Amino acid sequence: MDRDVAAYAPATVSNVACGFDIMGFALDEPGDKVTVRFSRGKDVTIRRISGCTSTLPMNPARNTAGAPVIEMLKHCRVRRGVEIEIRKGLPAGSGIGSSAASAVAAAVACNALLGAGLSKEEILTFALHGEKIASGGVHVDNLSPSLWGGFILVRGYDPLDIVQIPISAPMWCVIVRPHMEIRTKESRKMLPRTVPLSDVVRQTGNAAGLVAGLMSGDFGLISRSLHDVIAEPARRHLIPGFADMKSAALDAGALGCSLSGSGPSVFALAKSKRTARQIGIAMGSILNSVSCPHSVIVSGISSAGARIIS
Amino acid sequence: MDRDVAAYAPATVSNVACGFDIMGFALDEPGDKVTVRFSRGKDVTIRRISGCTSTLPMNPARNTAGAPVIEMLKHCRVRRGVEIEIRKGLPAGSGIGSSAASAVAAAVACNALLGAGLSKEEILTFALHGEKIASGGVHVDNLSPSLWGGFILVRGYDPLDIVQIPISAPMWCVIVRPHMEIRTKESRKMLPRTVPLSDVVRQTGNAAGLVAGLMSGDFGLISRSLHDVIAEPARRHLIPGFADMKSAALDAGALGCSLSGSGPSVFALAKSKRTARQIGIAMGSILNSVSCPHSVIVSGISSAGARIIS
Repeated sequence: MDRDVAAYAPATVSNVACGFDIMGFALDEPGDKVTVRFSRGKDVTIRRISGCTSTLPMNPARNTAGAPVIEMLKHCRVRRGVEIEIRKGLPAGSGIGSSAASAVAAAVACNALLGAGLSKEEILTFALHGEKIASGGVHVDNLSPSLWGGFILVRGYDPLDIVQIPISAPMWCVIVRPHMEIRTKESRKMLPRTVPLSDVVRQTGNAAGLVAGLMSGDFGLISRSLHDVIAEPARRHLIPGFADMKSAALDAGALGCSLSGSGPSVFALAKSKRTARQIGIAMGSILNSVSCPHSVIVSGISSAGARIIS
Repeated sequence: MDRDVAAYAPATVSNVACGFDIMGFALDEPGDKVTVRFSRGKDVTIRRISGCTSTLPMNPARNTAGAPVIEMLKHCRVRRGVEIEIRKGLPAGSGIGSSAASAVAAAVACNALLGAGLSKEEILTFALHGEKIASGGVHVDNLSPSLWGGFILVRGYDPLDIVQIPISAPMWCVIVRPHMEIRTKESRKMLPRTVPLSDVVRQTGNAAGLVAGLMSGDFGLISRSLHDVIAEPARRHLIPGFADMKSAALDAGALGCSLSGSGPSVFALAKSKRTARQIGIAMGSILNSVSCPHSVIVSGISSAGARIIS
């Protein structure tokens, strides 16, 4: 019997306020686990999806973990069947890179199963086949931090240019996730097609400021840079109590607070785990006051990224 | 007789391709020298403008060096007359921060003359009165590098947030200045009022990438980030032979090449003084081929900024 190969890929926060479509960072947890093994058949099959999942497709061509495996087998000209098991640590449509984590874990696991020896850049292109199914476009701001770990800048898309930004100051992240789903495909339709030049100046200033702040360990600069004038104004109405949650987070000491990806999760950054917990309580109490069921996650920023776990 | 106080403020390259309205750096030279002294009268007067000047206003309220002095005297409640001499090292309307250099030198000199002890942030607000006359708006991407020196990020305008970006890799700058004038006020009218979202993503990626490249000393990343999808496409037609000059610069080893400020000067960055000189020759030969009179400057990036020189 062939061996199982299992990989873990962490949840991620993309956009990070001022970095629409170009920034993202990885959390220590939660994450998705994908196990692959050769099967007796000739096809790729999804044997089981467990964990916090609702209705993910069992058809591998339409599943974010299945598509990367199908493409990698094609690329490597392997004509054997592969069986996939997915353990979802993060729910779909929650805005913390659920589809990206499954796609990355599947691509990393399949690379090891095949002994393909692909580089991270190559693995990313296969994971993209999964992300496309979920988001309807070529977005790597969740995929790349899930794969590399740490804080990632997608400098450019054509050609793809992934830059790992060294973080000089340790930070903690709070995620407050209202128990509702926003599909990335739908959420993208709410974005403006054009942006006033004055807002472009503000967004570029903040994006450049955030990178400078992260690299120099300047918490003040990080905090002043964590503003989004493009996606947040277009999407915040989708999230119950967003304005109050953001105020509560900042009052409790958050460096900044905005939508995680396209929402509904909201993230905040903090200088310490203790402050992060207090921010989580403050944000949660706002959602309690509007009777919105939710979960709170407090996590460090992962420097590890996706990895083989067995 | 009261003493003379003279200050020097260097030329600057603003926008820096991907940093429209938010980035600028200072050159070692050329620069403007402004001398101030108390006079017997009660007014601010401009006694002399020398150097490479054409028709700058002798009315101090309409002169970029005069306005900061008038405002600073008001602010400090000094009811004495001040006489100003301006030695222009850089011509007006050339795109290397001529108005900013005069305004900064005047504000720095006047601060010393009055013994006002103003901070750089405060001096900047007075220099702004001069820059407004020239550009018709509140732009500090030439003023702030001229005042602070080095590479400056204007993270935000409201409130003003000036960030000095430490450069890990030494670089040289080439300026090729066609002998023609483009007024910033006119050049701004050519800018698009809105920018497609896809271009915003490209511009923010490049701006963030440039900061990361400068701070980490990654020449490859600096080079890949030096692209402007907003102002350059709207303004390049104003500059004779721009496309060929840019190609020639890149072929000669430039890390990047774009308009300096709103032009007509074109800047290129290089890893060494030798390469910078070769780039200057290559760019100059393009302007020669279209019979465009021009000057070439090769300079280091100044870390000093404006200073009292006597």
